[in-house]
Amino acid sequence: MLDFDGWVCPAPLRDYPNIVMGHGGGGKLSAELIENLFLPAFQSATLAQLGDSAVVEVGGVRLAFSTDSFVVRPLFFPGGNIGDLAVNGTVNDIAMSGAQPLYMSAGFILEEGVPISQLAAIAQSMGVAARAAGVSLVTGDTKVVDRGHGDGVYITTSGFGVVPAGLRIGPDQARPGDVVIVSGDIGVHGMAILSVREGLEFGAPLETDCAPLNGLVAAMLARSQAIHVLRDPTRGGVASTLNEIAVASRVGVRIVERDLPIPPAVRAACEILGLDPLYVANEGKLLAFVARDEAEAVLEAMRAHPLGRSAAIIGEVSAEHPGMVVARTSIGGTRVVDTQVGEQLPRIC
Amino acid sequence: MLDFDGWVCPAPLRDYPNIVMGHGGGGKLSAELIENLFLPAFQSATLAQLGDSAVVEVGGVRLAFSTDSFVVRPLFFPGGNIGDLAVNGTVNDIAMSGAQPLYMSAGFILEEGVPISQLAAIAQSMGVAARAAGVSLVTGDTKVVDRGHGDGVYITTSGFGVVPAGLRIGPDQARPGDVVIVSGDIGVHGMAILSVREGLEFGAPLETDCAPLNGLVAAMLARSQAIHVLRDPTRGGVASTLNEIAVASRVGVRIVERDLPIPPAVRAACEILGLDPLYVANEGKLLAFVARDEAEAVLEAMRAHPLGRSAAIIGEVSAEHPGMVVARTSIGGTRVVDTQVGEQLPRIC
Repeated sequence: MLDFDGWVCPAPLRDYPNIVMGHGGGGKLSAELIENLFLPAFQSATLAQLGDSAVVEVGGVRLAFSTDSFVVRPLFFPGGNIGDLAVNGTVNDIAMSGAQPLYMSAGFILEEGVPISQLAAIAQSMGVAARAAGVSLVTGDTKVVDRGHGDGVYITTSGFGVVPAGLRIGPDQARPGDVVIVSGDIGVHGMAILSVREGLEFGAPLETDCAPLNGLVAAMLARSQAIHVLRDPTRGGVASTLNEIAVASRVGVRIVERDLPIPPAVRAACEILGLDPLYVANEGKLLAFVARDEAEAVLEAMRAHPLGRSAAIIGEVSAEHPGMVVARTSIGGTRVVDTQVGEQLPRIC
Repeated sequence: MLDFDGWVCPAPLRDYPNIVMGHGGGGKLSAELIENLFLPAFQSATLAQLGDSAVVEVGGVRLAFSTDSFVVRPLFFPGGNIGDLAVNGTVNDIAMSGAQPLYMSAGFILEEGVPISQLAAIAQSMGVAARAAGVSLVTGDTKVVDRGHGDGVYITTSGFGVVPAGLRIGPDQARPGDVVIVSGDIGVHGMAILSVREGLEFGAPLETDCAPLNGLVAAMLARSQAIHVLRDPTRGGVASTLNEIAVASRVGVRIVERDLPIPPAVRAACEILGLDPLYVANEGKLLAFVARDEAEAVLEAMRAHPLGRSAAIIGEVSAEHPGMVVARTSIGGTRVVDTQVGEQLPRIC
């Protein structure tokens, strides 16, 4: 079935013969596409590690290299736009290997008819975001597609930075006994986008938390090298990211629901819409897995940084139930926190 | 006019308040957009050099870093598809600084409904192209946009490679006395795409010339280091690329029309459609500016390589008329070869 030039569709992909929104959602369908379609085609051992960035060696230097495409709707939303999102997204993917991002590229796919002034506003936001993160936008490309064929502005950023010698941070480095820390309130970006897209109002207006996390990471690493995993829980939210780490490190992750920092506006909006904040995207938050005896020191360093003021310990790593995330609920029970299958909120980044 | 958050549209952009196809054509409109919108926003000295790739230093190593977005229609065309085009496009941009590409990223923007089998065929072509060029696809991203909002498959590739020590190849390095060499037949990719898109037949079928040029560049550099400029004349064709070099190096370029290697099928198709082969895109060809006394040696090295068999000297660099390209016509006159204003053939890459 699904034969194309002799290609036989692997079994896990057969439920969906055509691309569905969930293939871009960062959850189970995305993972299946990578594992069964891209990995066999690209045959790269580095790609197979599936970190937020690829760590490669060039001339004796280890570089963290990453790319992300951005298709968020609308282009402008409370607290940001597709431009700063595109810069910070790649900055953060690089920072999650402990590297400081240095250079970045930007590829634009523009739809015929986009106002030049709108593109200028987006480009200016990108410049401001790049300078704030200490990264240089050094190369780019612009393509234009016919009216009705694109969708305003799509941006793909790529970039790299140097991984400090000796550092080995990755999704497969979590160990039993590690403490799980989140850098601040969760669910904010996704609900900010949703509120403006659907014209909803939830009391206090929600603004995206989009921010460059490399400064926070530098402050954490200056305090302790016992940081095993860093990850920014974007698409798929905290739940999907924790599941990826649990699988990659072959450990169990236990979180405590009442310790999750969820702002009232996010909680209220999620309740109205029937969404779980654990699956809502974040853009300026990170999850850190830290050795237990260094956790308080790292937490202190985080709270001293503007982007980590509400940092909190939300769980721990266990040798039991490897590959699985469980949550202690507020009523004292335990539930499995599964990875997202498709996409709860499409096109939030 | 065109005010957006205090941004005042620079005079050169005022003719087009909205994006038109020509802004993505690689000609004059593209250049104006970069110069007046992206450069002021990004404020990067490296970007301002406008090479096919940015050359940056990291840990004592010089890296050539480049990105390109691909929106070609149709996705599959004679001799290739958007996948190998996307890999070879970035391979070649990196190779044009004399570097051997090492690592590459791929960002996919997929439209809901694309057959998985089609995506698999594209990904497999990318893998084959990457291995042929000796580059590893190490990181990627996949986003999905709603049916009717995208256009099947868009791909943005980025990559980097190490620039050999001492080498200084760039569009601003042409010198009076340099000889201009083209590596083979021109106009092939553009006419191959056009023939299938428009359902035209021009006698012998035209297939894209899409190919990785890093091997050819290595063979040239093994013979001589007196190569000052390398450039692959994609969008905007040979004419636009020569103009960019003439402007960047502040030199005049003279070409001889009858020395241009134009295959009969391209010439015939261009005549029927009223196109000038000098402005038609190429994908597996390069232009080299070489010191006169090394030109024959470089030409010989090129002709010994499968991708340079029809290499030919097509012109020379002069100190006169800096920034301008002129052609000696077949009837003995001289004409100015201007840069393309908009886009002759939209979405050929």
